[in-house]
Amino acid sequence: MARTDIARRVYNHTWKLDPIVRSLLDTDFYKLLMLQMIWGMHPKVDATFSLINRATSVKLAEEIDEGELREQLDHARTLRFSKKEMIWLGGNNFYGRKQIFEPEFLAWLENFQLPPYHLEKRDGQYELTFAGPWVLTSMWEIPALAIINELRSRSAMKAFGPFALDVLYARAKAKMWDKTERLKMLPEIKISDFGTRRRHSFLWQRWCVEALKEGIGEAFTGTSNVLLAMDTDLEALGTNAHELPMVYAALANNEDELKQSPYKVLRDWQRYYGGNLLIVLPDAFGTAAFLRDAPDWVADWTGFRPDSAPPIEGGERIIEWWRKKGQDPRSKLLIFSDGLDVDTIIETYRHFEGKVRMSFGWGTNLTNDFEGCAPVETDRLNAISLVCKVTETNGRPAVKLSDNPAKATGDKKEIARYLRIFGEKDRVEQLVKV
Amino acid sequence: MARTDIARRVYNHTWKLDPIVRSLLDTDFYKLLMLQMIWGMHPKVDATFSLINRATSVKLAEEIDEGELREQLDHARTLRFSKKEMIWLGGNNFYGRKQIFEPEFLAWLENFQLPPYHLEKRDGQYELTFAGPWVLTSMWEIPALAIINELRSRSAMKAFGPFALDVLYARAKAKMWDKTERLKMLPEIKISDFGTRRRHSFLWQRWCVEALKEGIGEAFTGTSNVLLAMDTDLEALGTNAHELPMVYAALANNEDELKQSPYKVLRDWQRYYGGNLLIVLPDAFGTAAFLRDAPDWVADWTGFRPDSAPPIEGGERIIEWWRKKGQDPRSKLLIFSDGLDVDTIIETYRHFEGKVRMSFGWGTNLTNDFEGCAPVETDRLNAISLVCKVTETNGRPAVKLSDNPAKATGDKKEIARYLRIFGEKDRVEQLVKV
Repeated sequence: MARTDIARRVYNHTWKLDPIVRSLLDTDFYKLLMLQMIWGMHPKVDATFSLINRATSVKLAEEIDEGELREQLDHARTLRFSKKEMIWLGGNNFYGRKQIFEPEFLAWLENFQLPPYHLEKRDGQYELTFAGPWVLTSMWEIPALAIINELRSRSAMKAFGPFALDVLYARAKAKMWDKTERLKMLPEIKISDFGTRRRHSFLWQRWCVEALKEGIGEAFTGTSNVLLAMDTDLEALGTNAHELPMVYAALANNEDELKQSPYKVLRDWQRYYGGNLLIVLPDAFGTAAFLRDAPDWVADWTGFRPDSAPPIEGGERIIEWWRKKGQDPRSKLLIFSDGLDVDTIIETYRHFEGKVRMSFGWGTNLTNDFEGCAPVETDRLNAISLVCKVTETNGRPAVKLSDNPAKATGDKKEIARYLRIFGEKDRVEQLVKV
Repeated sequence: MARTDIARRVYNHTWKLDPIVRSLLDTDFYKLLMLQMIWGMHPKVDATFSLINRATSVKLAEEIDEGELREQLDHARTLRFSKKEMIWLGGNNFYGRKQIFEPEFLAWLENFQLPPYHLEKRDGQYELTFAGPWVLTSMWEIPALAIINELRSRSAMKAFGPFALDVLYARAKAKMWDKTERLKMLPEIKISDFGTRRRHSFLWQRWCVEALKEGIGEAFTGTSNVLLAMDTDLEALGTNAHELPMVYAALANNEDELKQSPYKVLRDWQRYYGGNLLIVLPDAFGTAAFLRDAPDWVADWTGFRPDSAPPIEGGERIIEWWRKKGQDPRSKLLIFSDGLDVDTIIETYRHFEGKVRMSFGWGTNLTNDFEGCAPVETDRLNAISLVCKVTETNGRPAVKLSDNPAKATGDKKEIARYLRIFGEKDRVEQLVKV
């Protein structure tokens, strides 16, 4: 038997494209949940999404070849949901519920295609924007980020020989496994993979998901990545994102509508979803303002996902608010998902143990932690804070304030206006590493 | 293109034997150097080699299946030197010398076959002996040890799933690479691979050799493994072993001949070899006795390989002896090869830097260090102190005293007699880990 599969070798050496995103399901589950609501309630709203590289010292346009980036984005536009994928979306239980997606929505999804993109270089960065109907552009967020992050990894590794690559991945695996062993010490913990957008690569995310399955067993509750959930029979997890209140707020016609927009999002959301999908993301315009002005029924929701305040302080404020509203925090859920690493997970878990139900949505530090792994000196494998945010809707600027001013996005004048309306209470500048 | 090579898959799943030793060159170079001398000067001497497991708590016969062991030993007996191997042995320069092997010896080697073995189980251990002409039995030492060590690794890993194996090797690679990074800090160091006999597996030894090539470059001077030296264009390294003085001593007819036997070995050796091959292995019957009684010409040899005394003390005694004999130690070579790990290598190197030329023959801790690597609790991947020693020659018991009484081998009464003759000076009991 030949040792070398000649056909495969020739094929590999004449490879035109190694697609990064190979399925429209290779996205975060919450995009589909939000998409159904956008499709149902806001089919005419336009929304522009823009790539924002917070790591301004990293010149993406110098690290990533424009031609390769276009090839990957173009390839993603050729994708459609496959028959198998459509059947699975229709037939699978999500969050314990059958047919979470309406047949009409699925029928529409069958023909879904990612819309055109606009790409240009400026000052060593890429200006990458997706303009058009919200119900189309929203779906670019995750594949666009996954593509850029993986192209950046590939570019960093181009100089590596086979041995250096072998050592790189061996170390990354050893590092990842050490993390699972530390997490295993907390048998009641609930951890899920939220790392699609920031992953080093698709294959590496898959390995990390397998490592969590093997390493912490039942404590690993699922993945936000729909394709991996389908392929590995894991739960697909996720609820909603800042784009909802951001668009609602931008469309508000007066100050009162603006102040009410975060709650309007929740009201619309619960028309579609219930139970564990009733998770509040409170920080779009500051958690303090959100809690101060929230109607009482918000306290009946299952939980909160504090996403930019320091986890312990942020969690404590929400618990205090629940108590004031007469709720027992022990029946409530906090989902932590902001810049988690094993230390913060353990520290937060220990702090809240017995006080509240918890879940950890582990992202960048799960799927893109190669610090110290390369056998040659490079900082180009370190993850960066790259996001793809809605920046405009129906011609109006969209804004996020966040609890961390470093995570605010949008037009400066508009940010100032929002700050005037929502207030600055409890906003604390923190270094955004990833 | 099919993702699965069906033919290969079926072949792999019906595999009858995965041979551990696939070439007679998969042995230590010094065996060939010694073999030429044995062939030339002692063709009629019989020598029995026996497996000795110093790790008595490890029950080899319980860990390794007898049938599998026999299959591997039988397979090794089917091997012959291939044409390519013979041409390389005849055509390659060893230690800078052309035609180190005589044409007549090579002609004889062409038909070499490993002789029969005797195997039985006793008290959970294997009694494995090779009896017959020294010029045949000597060649069993390395393949027998490599086979048993790799069968032991395989047996330990039988319970591992694919993920556990992936983590195991990832960690072992990460660990090995960390070692190369520490050694790289010592740019003038000379390190070679002496790990064939104790290796975890052939493929792992090859990976470690590649790691040293990549990791420390010129500081990696070669390997004792002849096959790896040939395949990777490295220097084949090694000089001589205890079996020479052990056999000479056992054949001595009186006390005076016995006391002279270590020097007779050296006199015979230099008929065949010169230069960097003139390395004294002084500890067969104690280094103190060896130095005390050594003729002056021994001080003219290129260097010593202290193999059982603590490296710094042992090296200092030899340097002191060189000085007494009017030699400049800075022109002399010490080859350290006993139970080295990175710490002892660095410590020894720092101690002797500038005082003497040094080289480190790195064995077990290079090619079989899996401690802490398995994702499941097991001590069965930890290397053990397993040797294959000459125990009898022409019907007489063969004995080694060593500088470390824990490394002595042979008949107890005979050891007592040798101790009376050679003395006990400077012998220090040390734990033999590997």
